[in-house]
Amino acid sequence: MFRRLMTFDEARRVIGEKLKLNVLGEEEIPLLEACNRVLGENIVSALNIPSFSKSTVDGYAVKAEDTYGAEENQPAKLTTVGIVNIGEKPKISIGKGETVEIVTGAPIPKGADAVVMVENTDRQDSELHVFRAVTRDENVMKYGQDIKKGDTVLKTGQILNASDIGVLAALGFVKVKVFKIPMVAVLSTGAEITEPGEKLLDGKIYDINAYSLSIAVQESNGKPIYLGVVQDDKVELRKALKHALASADMVITSGGVSVGPKDLTPQVVNSLGKPGVIINGIAVKPGKPTTIALVGRKPVICLPGHPTSALLMFYLIARPIIQSMSGRPTSQVKTVKALASRRMFSARGRRTFVMVKLNPGKSSMQLAEPVETGASGAITTLAKADGFISIPENHQFIDTGEEVIVTILNEAS
Amino acid sequence: MFRRLMTFDEARRVIGEKLKLNVLGEEEIPLLEACNRVLGENIVSALNIPSFSKSTVDGYAVKAEDTYGAEENQPAKLTTVGIVNIGEKPKISIGKGETVEIVTGAPIPKGADAVVMVENTDRQDSELHVFRAVTRDENVMKYGQDIKKGDTVLKTGQILNASDIGVLAALGFVKVKVFKIPMVAVLSTGAEITEPGEKLLDGKIYDINAYSLSIAVQESNGKPIYLGVVQDDKVELRKALKHALASADMVITSGGVSVGPKDLTPQVVNSLGKPGVIINGIAVKPGKPTTIALVGRKPVICLPGHPTSALLMFYLIARPIIQSMSGRPTSQVKTVKALASRRMFSARGRRTFVMVKLNPGKSSMQLAEPVETGASGAITTLAKADGFISIPENHQFIDTGEEVIVTILNEAS
Repeated sequence: MFRRLMTFDEARRVIGEKLKLNVLGEEEIPLLEACNRVLGENIVSALNIPSFSKSTVDGYAVKAEDTYGAEENQPAKLTTVGIVNIGEKPKISIGKGETVEIVTGAPIPKGADAVVMVENTDRQDSELHVFRAVTRDENVMKYGQDIKKGDTVLKTGQILNASDIGVLAALGFVKVKVFKIPMVAVLSTGAEITEPGEKLLDGKIYDINAYSLSIAVQESNGKPIYLGVVQDDKVELRKALKHALASADMVITSGGVSVGPKDLTPQVVNSLGKPGVIINGIAVKPGKPTTIALVGRKPVICLPGHPTSALLMFYLIARPIIQSMSGRPTSQVKTVKALASRRMFSARGRRTFVMVKLNPGKSSMQLAEPVETGASGAITTLAKADGFISIPENHQFIDTGEEVIVTILNEAS
Repeated sequence: MFRRLMTFDEARRVIGEKLKLNVLGEEEIPLLEACNRVLGENIVSALNIPSFSKSTVDGYAVKAEDTYGAEENQPAKLTTVGIVNIGEKPKISIGKGETVEIVTGAPIPKGADAVVMVENTDRQDSELHVFRAVTRDENVMKYGQDIKKGDTVLKTGQILNASDIGVLAALGFVKVKVFKIPMVAVLSTGAEITEPGEKLLDGKIYDINAYSLSIAVQESNGKPIYLGVVQDDKVELRKALKHALASADMVITSGGVSVGPKDLTPQVVNSLGKPGVIINGIAVKPGKPTTIALVGRKPVICLPGHPTSALLMFYLIARPIIQSMSGRPTSQVKTVKALASRRMFSARGRRTFVMVKLNPGKSSMQLAEPVETGASGAITTLAKADGFISIPENHQFIDTGEEVIVTILNEAS
């Protein structure tokens, strides 16, 4: 039976509509664990920072007007009446003609409105000579100058970095509300697949995908639940998928979705809950058998068994879903312009992705050289490639020397 | 006493020479935990991949020469003698004029040297018509074609990503040797500093640096040991530093290194072991009091108390040290060219770093606008800035409209 496959753009639209998942929800975690997490609330300051006016230099707190006119050879003369240390509420205040010694970061005492730097003074016992006038507020960081009470200092959806965490600490936070990280169950199917670490029998190969896709989930800031290899058998697969759906927010399988007789995964997924399969194959190359389902609100993404195809379709399809469940902006992919080093044919009617390596060319633009795949089963293709070119459905080929846009893979991860 | 400070370049050279730390060493960890870790050994394949020649399509395994001359209206006629399934060692072999059914990924049986795609055949019981000739090895991925036994497939120092981990799984690995992650103790000192979560008394401020620097350690792929606030007191500081040195590979302090009377940290560090302080202040602005010591082989980096200065000096000085201890290449900083939005003065004789925000300009280049710091104690400066400009020691200022290079901060983290 002929069935028209969804185009890549249709598939992405359907994913956007039907899998338009709300973020999973928020959780409160210690500040020290919040590196690279997505902030789940607006942070409104309950404090003024600094919470008191303070000196930004070592010197003498003064009334600015007492220094007006002071010069090198005509110093203002003030009386030192005490000292303000850092970390203490000043017990002292100053009157006209008075000053107190002060260190950087210490609170400005009552009566003072500026600080003279120690370099611009000379002191004999309690008599202080000031050789340079200061203006009001000079060398003072005022109450609330950095952050005002009520200011929104950080916003929902921000990815927290070192300086953001510093701002939260300054406001006295020790915990912060962030979006939950999706748990993503990852399993491989296929009669030929053996778990790494076990003995490799004739005709078998070691499983790659449960490993590479688990790592790709981590690179996408999800939390993988590695379930390893599941027998390509209806009962086993159903059991494994039920377990996966019970323990995770999303499931990724690979293998068992080509057109051969053992392609059970989509059937089994459909039997597990509504709405079931929403995309059954996509007009792309590689990655055509990719199947996408929803069981309740949980996405199930069935990727092809070929390691390169599986990982490429993960980057194109699964990662944006993980990111939207995390409340995380879809990662900006990095692209570079390059020149095609040779003619590259498309699979007509299918969006074709060609893995390429970037090599220096004669012009300032690099050459995009297709990575020799041997066959689509090759596992080293992605490790050798710098990125991929996407050839539209209506193009027969990209010609030698044509300008192409290469999407860089490592930057996207 | 006047003491000439080391220039920024001198300090970096001294760090390179005296702190030229070998990597900490290797450890073996499970493959699933190796995401973004640095490979600590060359990986030489002990297997041929694939370990058997296999079909890359669904179809019929043949002797290629039996199909020569086959065309749409003049098919080659072969006798089907069996089937080869995926994951099984073929029990069958083919002779002249014979063929076996085969699926993608299944081993090529003895006697066959090519596979005809099912689309190019027509079968009636055991009689197979082949409508298109195949050449030798067509639709076959040969034994060792992807990876040859003895090939070096991954190299020491590589940062492991999803496809690298996939390659390791393909080779049967379940563990991998990686470089150890440095443990970095982080503590703050200062009489005015209060732990977040505690009540903020008059004249006190919440600690920022132990938080922001712990997160910065994580962003640099180190493992922070948060030690919080330590009293600015000789006995307490010595106790805390001894504890830090005993439990970590490196120690980062902040505060207590300015020229005031309470600057105990360098003295205390010197009392803890040889060679002690190797850099006591650097001719930079901000960050002048930065002090760098070695106790045995363990670096102790004493950063200034100002949050912005501390974090900036961390990025410039401490991160490259953490990276070299990790066997990790020093991160490439991203820079962009921009135009100075206004005149920016340097602290003459000191390498001056000006935090800037990038704003759209009239030309294609962005404008680099200095971030209003209020005073160097401001904590929001780094959060507001996109990066910084470095003004050389011998420049008085950068003029309005001058082209500048902005080092981007987030990309570097």
